[in-house]
Amino acid sequence: METSRKPYSEMSDSELSQELEALRKDYHNYQAMDMNLDMSRGKPCREQLDISMGMMDVLNSSSDLVCEDGTDCRNYGVLTGIDEARELMSDMMENNPDNIIIFGNSSLNVMYDCISRSFTHGVMGSTPWCKLDKVKWLCPVPGYDRHFAITEYFGIEMINIPMTPEGPDMDMIEQLVSEDESIKGIWCCPKYSNPQGYSYSDRTVSRFAHLKPAATDFRIYWDNAYTIHHLYETDQDYIVEILAECKKAGNPDLVYKFASTSKVAFPGSGIAAMAASLNNLEDVKKQMKFQTIGHDKVNQLRTTRFFKNIHGMVEHMKKHAAILRPKFESVETIFSENLDGLGIGEWTVPKGGYFISFETLPGCAKKVVAYCKKAGVTLTAAGSAFPYHLDPADTNIRIAPSFPPLEELKTAAKLFTLCVKIVSIEKILEDRSK
Amino acid sequence: METSRKPYSEMSDSELSQELEALRKDYHNYQAMDMNLDMSRGKPCREQLDISMGMMDVLNSSSDLVCEDGTDCRNYGVLTGIDEARELMSDMMENNPDNIIIFGNSSLNVMYDCISRSFTHGVMGSTPWCKLDKVKWLCPVPGYDRHFAITEYFGIEMINIPMTPEGPDMDMIEQLVSEDESIKGIWCCPKYSNPQGYSYSDRTVSRFAHLKPAATDFRIYWDNAYTIHHLYETDQDYIVEILAECKKAGNPDLVYKFASTSKVAFPGSGIAAMAASLNNLEDVKKQMKFQTIGHDKVNQLRTTRFFKNIHGMVEHMKKHAAILRPKFESVETIFSENLDGLGIGEWTVPKGGYFISFETLPGCAKKVVAYCKKAGVTLTAAGSAFPYHLDPADTNIRIAPSFPPLEELKTAAKLFTLCVKIVSIEKILEDRSK
Repeated sequence: METSRKPYSEMSDSELSQELEALRKDYHNYQAMDMNLDMSRGKPCREQLDISMGMMDVLNSSSDLVCEDGTDCRNYGVLTGIDEARELMSDMMENNPDNIIIFGNSSLNVMYDCISRSFTHGVMGSTPWCKLDKVKWLCPVPGYDRHFAITEYFGIEMINIPMTPEGPDMDMIEQLVSEDESIKGIWCCPKYSNPQGYSYSDRTVSRFAHLKPAATDFRIYWDNAYTIHHLYETDQDYIVEILAECKKAGNPDLVYKFASTSKVAFPGSGIAAMAASLNNLEDVKKQMKFQTIGHDKVNQLRTTRFFKNIHGMVEHMKKHAAILRPKFESVETIFSENLDGLGIGEWTVPKGGYFISFETLPGCAKKVVAYCKKAGVTLTAAGSAFPYHLDPADTNIRIAPSFPPLEELKTAAKLFTLCVKIVSIEKILEDRSK
Repeated sequence: METSRKPYSEMSDSELSQELEALRKDYHNYQAMDMNLDMSRGKPCREQLDISMGMMDVLNSSSDLVCEDGTDCRNYGVLTGIDEARELMSDMMENNPDNIIIFGNSSLNVMYDCISRSFTHGVMGSTPWCKLDKVKWLCPVPGYDRHFAITEYFGIEMINIPMTPEGPDMDMIEQLVSEDESIKGIWCCPKYSNPQGYSYSDRTVSRFAHLKPAATDFRIYWDNAYTIHHLYETDQDYIVEILAECKKAGNPDLVYKFASTSKVAFPGSGIAAMAASLNNLEDVKKQMKFQTIGHDKVNQLRTTRFFKNIHGMVEHMKKHAAILRPKFESVETIFSENLDGLGIGEWTVPKGGYFISFETLPGCAKKVVAYCKKAGVTLTAAGSAFPYHLDPADTNIRIAPSFPPLEELKTAAKLFTLCVKIVSIEKILEDRSK
């Protein structure tokens, strides 16, 4: 790492112009490579999918598809999921099986349905949100674009909450929720957050559990998407279990917790789950029984028999880590090699999850993404990690290293740093000329 | 069949009392058998599930899980379903693949979501129903209890429409929808209807397609649940395809059509689909893209590769028919043998679907179901086939012959006719004594 480099801001116009010329030549070389690389989403790569192929052998036509309590999984019924699936997911989510409902293949769908239900039927007897003049939501930023898309779709007014490496700004949250009854929820990705890879500190979780919202129907949407998605076998983040903490704080109904096996086995063919207090689950079931007769129990059985138990799942996650770790480390190394000391970007170095969050100089993110695109590398659209796609400073870019093959990823990472350099110089020169 | 029997209504009090005494003795014998039989739901039986076990061998760890257009079905994506699943379902539903969206495991869930979406976001730009003072719905009766449960859950006022062997009373429907803008939909089970097994006549379908609803956001919920669920290989019902008919009538957006493979392969592990005009599908997709990244493509692939094509599916349905046919015929034979000529009940004789609809004397249905229950046979609760569980005449009982083994079913059918006799005599005597 060349920390002895001169920051761009300290370079003269002519030094920068000279540098820019060289960088542009380099850029043309990348363009000539005719790349077509998609780094826009947190998609597992082919090798990661391959390690779950055993899932396809778990059940065959000689299998007994009867689950532990005697239910024939092939037939209708069992609204909240088979016992063994609830047990496995409860171990993954660190909750009691009684506090778990198993759903279909998508936890996002469960979150959507929770908000939709709150609009049409309220929360545990509250006024349906569709009858209210205004519904607001807290959105730690940068955050997960699909979360924000749901609240935007429902016309909910979203309020940005700045993120820190300890979690969102709790002072701001505490004040807002205690004052404003129209604030009905907050999106949280508490562990290896999307996109930073931050994990909430013990103090943050505790403050969440002790919130005193003005709205009785306020719920924390605790999307623990990356709960067991570590990159390292020993150097792992731990977060305090939120349901237990809420119970201790006398706020047992404050939180809906979500997780799924989408990034454990096959995305799109996993099982999603929700953990919450019995009161909350009763409320959910009141609706759920009208919506479906039950989710796919054969797939619940397949998933459970494949992993056997939480230990099997943890061992399985090590295989994912072995594939993802070099990818994350390569990106970080290339970023350091090419950008350290230049003062034109900062990035997170997560121990798990699916993303690295990059911060450019103000007003550069969109242009960097556009330049990468023109050279064949698609990144998540700049601004996506903010409500309404509005990144106020235009600085944030989400890097998703999982999907491309390692060598291509390295090329893309190099191209990315090149684009950051070009755009930064252009910006500095432009600012100076004003 | 002893058609020479004397109807109960023509028997004297003492004749009836004598008959009742004998019947009650018989009833006690059934009670002593200590049966525990569930005929409450339209569940396939074990033998029916067994014929789909090949589904578990279609995919294994050596399978190529890439679908025809090159998509890796193991990963995220493909919101509306893989091409081959859309093709298979389009053949099953008699629509163009372009007019099909594939969903998760439950068509009921799709119907629920359609109504929920209409409440929160309206239909193709209409006012969201939650903003309206009143939403009403037409319910052909008797009908499917889970349909009525959804509309009841959303606080929709349900209006009973009498059913005939040709379909619902179209005069009434035409008048109501043309006059009342608050009527937003109708539940239809057009083929082998639940619970009668009636199939809508050509004239009925045509009149549906030509409806002129006052509400632009009125939709026909066409739940073609039993579209290929015939009991006989040649003597089958055909119904006119509704989407095409609506298009011809200049009403292309009037209908949402639903189907699934729940009663083709495994209930709960099938694939559900919706067919509608491109305008309607665009409207659905606008919401769907916020709700999920996509449904279970591996299961779509498994289902499609198992059946291969619609011919494979049709051949598969013959195996179901071979199991179900003797069950339906046994029930009908026992009903005839024990009830013909007595003037105390009528029943339908469907050529497909999952149910037989039984009509008792007025005011007897609840009691018959209660008597069966006390002797160990659970039927669908009387009144279930009506909105708010209110059967005005208390005459309708839904018989679900699919689940019990044939011999037990025969016993249950005999017990049922015995209960009908007892309750009818009690009712006649009670009426006479008034």
